[in-house]
Amino acid sequence: MMQMDWIAVDWGTSHLRAYAMAGTQIVDQATSAAGMGTLSRDGFEPALLALIDGWLGQKTRVPVIACGMVGARTGWQEAPYRGLPCAAVSAGALMTIVTDDPRIAVQIVPGLSQAAPADVMRGEETQIAGLLADHADQFDQVILPGTHSKHVMVAGQTVTGFTTYMTGELFALLSQQSVLRLSMVAEEGADAGPQGAAFAKGVELGATGALAHLFALRAEALLHDLTPAQARARLSGLLIGDELRHIRRATRPIAVIGSGDLAARYAQGLQLLGHRSHIFDGADLVIKGLAMARRKETV
Amino acid sequence: MMQMDWIAVDWGTSHLRAYAMAGTQIVDQATSAAGMGTLSRDGFEPALLALIDGWLGQKTRVPVIACGMVGARTGWQEAPYRGLPCAAVSAGALMTIVTDDPRIAVQIVPGLSQAAPADVMRGEETQIAGLLADHADQFDQVILPGTHSKHVMVAGQTVTGFTTYMTGELFALLSQQSVLRLSMVAEEGADAGPQGAAFAKGVELGATGALAHLFALRAEALLHDLTPAQARARLSGLLIGDELRHIRRATRPIAVIGSGDLAARYAQGLQLLGHRSHIFDGADLVIKGLAMARRKETV
Repeated sequence: MMQMDWIAVDWGTSHLRAYAMAGTQIVDQATSAAGMGTLSRDGFEPALLALIDGWLGQKTRVPVIACGMVGARTGWQEAPYRGLPCAAVSAGALMTIVTDDPRIAVQIVPGLSQAAPADVMRGEETQIAGLLADHADQFDQVILPGTHSKHVMVAGQTVTGFTTYMTGELFALLSQQSVLRLSMVAEEGADAGPQGAAFAKGVELGATGALAHLFALRAEALLHDLTPAQARARLSGLLIGDELRHIRRATRPIAVIGSGDLAARYAQGLQLLGHRSHIFDGADLVIKGLAMARRKETV
Repeated sequence: MMQMDWIAVDWGTSHLRAYAMAGTQIVDQATSAAGMGTLSRDGFEPALLALIDGWLGQKTRVPVIACGMVGARTGWQEAPYRGLPCAAVSAGALMTIVTDDPRIAVQIVPGLSQAAPADVMRGEETQIAGLLADHADQFDQVILPGTHSKHVMVAGQTVTGFTTYMTGELFALLSQQSVLRLSMVAEEGADAGPQGAAFAKGVELGATGALAHLFALRAEALLHDLTPAQARARLSGLLIGDELRHIRRATRPIAVIGSGDLAARYAQGLQLLGHRSHIFDGADLVIKGLAMARRKETV
């Protein structure tokens, strides 16, 4: 096994993922549910050590570079947002944390903010830095699907603007807690055929504005034969379609940073609306971005 | 006191309101929280009698005309929807309920359904009948704000189409359960000044599509000085603005059936988007509509 020389940490609201790194190679990894949302201020260092203690020797101080909600006002220590336009990660901009344990030297990548329209991100900037490290000038628009989906405009290495869509959070609220839950399955079924068509219909309708088409999911279940699995897929399509109508017509393809079904649905939605896209794995890019942040910091 | 000759009942998911009527005059009224949503099938007759028992004599059988969710599949007895286009209420279309108590003769006004786009209403049709009784040919478009706001197209006495918007339910979910709750007061403050401006800004932005502007409420609270009261008013404006962009440009004013702050906000939103409106009290119209249904039934 190669010698670990730093530790990369992706620390969001509901997850904590640590990677023992040798340069840009992963030599070991560990995950816990100790997300920012579960911790009080003095709980961060113990939660991190519980995960990485086995990687630490007694003598050397290991650099730890972390990104995500760990740097929020209610996180370990607030890493003030960097204002747009700016590079996704920047030399000298990491926030240093003073730890009790002398074996680690922790730094946090700050998030980005946009003044008008007001918007903020924490964590996505690191994935974007990872994307641009290998693909500068190949993409103008980057989508990071999720609870709070981000559409990010980039030019070279610079982030020039972004918009957050609450698509994932809206989907969870509407499918689990609104009247629509009565017409919907709780989870995606295995049978993707008709759901694919229902998703596509949702995208088509959603691209004209989702909110005018939500209640029809309930009414079609009452009056016609819309199945619970179709209703769930159509709702997903409606919300993603409403989001994707804001993508600009462009010659370059759209970069989608994500994985699994969700990234595939965004790619399908983009195709339905006439856009090309490339999917990049978010876990790979966050590590690459943290490596970029570390390199820039030590230059 | 005039002699009661029938009883009007407005029976929704979360309320039960009964009116002792002499022709079209209210001689007494009573309200309880025994809405359809709180009752099992055999609970409806006792809930009604608990409210109106004091009005009933021993000898005569009093007609009771009810509208609303009491006629849903999970209500007292299902009153099948009448399909569009049709009159708001119709002679011979009432659903008769067999009761144990011989002192009442209960009939339920059926709701309306639209095949495509699929949509349903229960209760609003009675308010529309009340409106059209006195104001036929004065309005083409009727808005009934609420948990599930309805936009209804009418021509003469005929309902020709309608669309349901989940505006009230979305507002409740987003203001109470989404990340936006962190930037928002739980209730409207008394100070209407700045909230009026925040509402107006929400309507303006919402008319271009609300979903692209939701997260900015959180970000403006984090980055700038958006107050919790302003955030709540802006959210209301965003959702109402998204709904009202579907109102067609027309020479006739829009009828808004509702009351209080909510009806006033819809009227303000319509004005901001260049439409004239008249507000009608929903409680008045439901009684008038029930009287229309009774008269047509006995013709």
